[in-house]
Amino acid sequence: MPTPSPSPESTAASLGDPTGLHRVLEPSGVLPQAAQRLDTRAELWPDEVRIRVERLNLDAASFRQLERTHHGDGDAVRAAVLDIVRTRGKMQNPETGSGGMLVGRVEEVGEASPLGLQVGDRVATLVSLTLTPLVIEDGLERWDGRSEQVPADGYAILFGRSIAARIPDDLSTELSLSVMDVCGAPALTERVVSDYAARREAGPVVAVIGGAGKSGSLSLAAARQAGAARTIGVVPTRQEADLLSAAGLADQVCLADARDPVALGKAVTDAGGPADVTVVCVDVPGCEGGAILATAERGTVIFFSMATSFSAAALGAEGLAADVTMLIGNGYTPGHADYAMSLLRAHDGVRGLFERRL
Amino acid sequence: MPTPSPSPESTAASLGDPTGLHRVLEPSGVLPQAAQRLDTRAELWPDEVRIRVERLNLDAASFRQLERTHHGDGDAVRAAVLDIVRTRGKMQNPETGSGGMLVGRVEEVGEASPLGLQVGDRVATLVSLTLTPLVIEDGLERWDGRSEQVPADGYAILFGRSIAARIPDDLSTELSLSVMDVCGAPALTERVVSDYAARREAGPVVAVIGGAGKSGSLSLAAARQAGAARTIGVVPTRQEADLLSAAGLADQVCLADARDPVALGKAVTDAGGPADVTVVCVDVPGCEGGAILATAERGTVIFFSMATSFSAAALGAEGLAADVTMLIGNGYTPGHADYAMSLLRAHDGVRGLFERRL
Repeated sequence: MPTPSPSPESTAASLGDPTGLHRVLEPSGVLPQAAQRLDTRAELWPDEVRIRVERLNLDAASFRQLERTHHGDGDAVRAAVLDIVRTRGKMQNPETGSGGMLVGRVEEVGEASPLGLQVGDRVATLVSLTLTPLVIEDGLERWDGRSEQVPADGYAILFGRSIAARIPDDLSTELSLSVMDVCGAPALTERVVSDYAARREAGPVVAVIGGAGKSGSLSLAAARQAGAARTIGVVPTRQEADLLSAAGLADQVCLADARDPVALGKAVTDAGGPADVTVVCVDVPGCEGGAILATAERGTVIFFSMATSFSAAALGAEGLAADVTMLIGNGYTPGHADYAMSLLRAHDGVRGLFERRL
Repeated sequence: MPTPSPSPESTAASLGDPTGLHRVLEPSGVLPQAAQRLDTRAELWPDEVRIRVERLNLDAASFRQLERTHHGDGDAVRAAVLDIVRTRGKMQNPETGSGGMLVGRVEEVGEASPLGLQVGDRVATLVSLTLTPLVIEDGLERWDGRSEQVPADGYAILFGRSIAARIPDDLSTELSLSVMDVCGAPALTERVVSDYAARREAGPVVAVIGGAGKSGSLSLAAARQAGAARTIGVVPTRQEADLLSAAGLADQVCLADARDPVALGKAVTDAGGPADVTVVCVDVPGCEGGAILATAERGTVIFFSMATSFSAAALGAEGLAADVTMLIGNGYTPGHADYAMSLLRAHDGVRGLFERRL
């Protein structure tokens, strides 16, 4: 009797779904990011890759939420992270909804993986931890619970449609990771600014709220390179203002509390605004109104902060009768990691700001 | 002795701030929407307009909260609304943070008002009651406290930057209000679709999720008029599919649960997608992933649903390695109310869907 050939459906199932649907345990039918719990089995579907984890990089908003909840008690924060990962099969803070990324070495590559990785490659995952099956095997014993950088041993799974970037040889792991973590921001800023410049006589005035931070400094460099007529960096403290001025990344540096809409709008306007493109890179809630007031009519606000409230932005613009385009900062643009690395290599000012934070 | 001429600062103050800052009593420095209490004096700053109020339209979430709190006791609900308005100088439910809109007749126009209104115009305010100075003078005696529609006598103030739309003579007040309530969606859809069409050889494929609803049907009509190559309406039930097919607003009508990303992506693709522009008009949480999967690479998703989660959209696109532009649906675009009215007048299919809901 001949062996029955597999049906097309079972073949498809055995290949895994490129978005990782086959790893969703509950609720069924949702994408891995929306899932309560993922399947973390170590055995690979043919299009998957398994990574031996060296370090997790927690999302800043998530880490701060955990730190606040546990009053800065590192042991409690560590226990909370372990509990989340054990319960959900992934690192996704239930309060903030955010995760982070990881660094590791490729341990096994499924025969049908389209990612082009080799066993032994050192990589960072550029898809969020919120959708990455993860098992921690060392109890995070090398982490004191007081920093977003988490040394860890364990494994993680990449799907067919995941993204991972090889860590460059000329930059330290820590530095590479810290760049990759925010590489979506400069890539989208570059696209919006060059699109604007291509359609008009002059480049746009670009304001970056949180200009001395990681995504902020890269976005300032990207904006200038993409043809901004003027770049304005907004920071909350005199110390950050001095740092950003010394870095030479912005034509104007100004001080304002981003949560104070009137002050933020005025600061940007006084510095040569309103901005044609405003990039929000500060991870505190309540910056929507100020960003809108800092932006010119028909201008664009790009929200990269995970603390952004959709309804505050939508109703805020309506309440101000502000005709501005508001973008949800998509963390993915093709080539974003390489682009951010190239900005870091080309701008000592960016590199200096990053290295201060390591 | 010569009269001192006013300083530039006092001149600016006497003109009023276009966003209404000069009416904020406490806390100082916040925008009117965030204020605890507004100044309701009837005398106008030169750029203001005073409206004689005929009816308030309470926000549904706010009304339901009041009804629940007072166990459906209409007199208690009325007393609560009167108390809020008296205490705060505006109708903003302290629990839900939301307000509503109002209908009335222009009573006085400040000499420097930029709104273009005439005394006697019948208007609806398109900025929220949460930022509109309001005085109620009739104790709401004609309202039984059992419906969101509140007959009222009193006055309200519009600022330089407020928005009010004339109620057309040829449409009932109820129909006009119901169109104005969602008029941001077709205006932004029109802009995105015509921008796409102008930059490429062919118009975009446009999918509207929730195509049989109010904002959805208007958005379908707007997309076709703006040059869409194909319009796809997605609805959750067979009944809505029949209604939308009969309305003739979409080239394809398909059935899918918008919360099921895989099903939604497949439905739109099977109907001639993926979409170059996807418009999300359904007010249920969890539609971000499906909207992204329904959209082509380099396409655009416009989120109009207030149930949209910023982080689910941002991380969802990243997790799917989806190079899509995601817009926060701004409720304001210049001329949006007139444009929506013109769509309603031109398309019997739109009008029919609206009238079914009155």
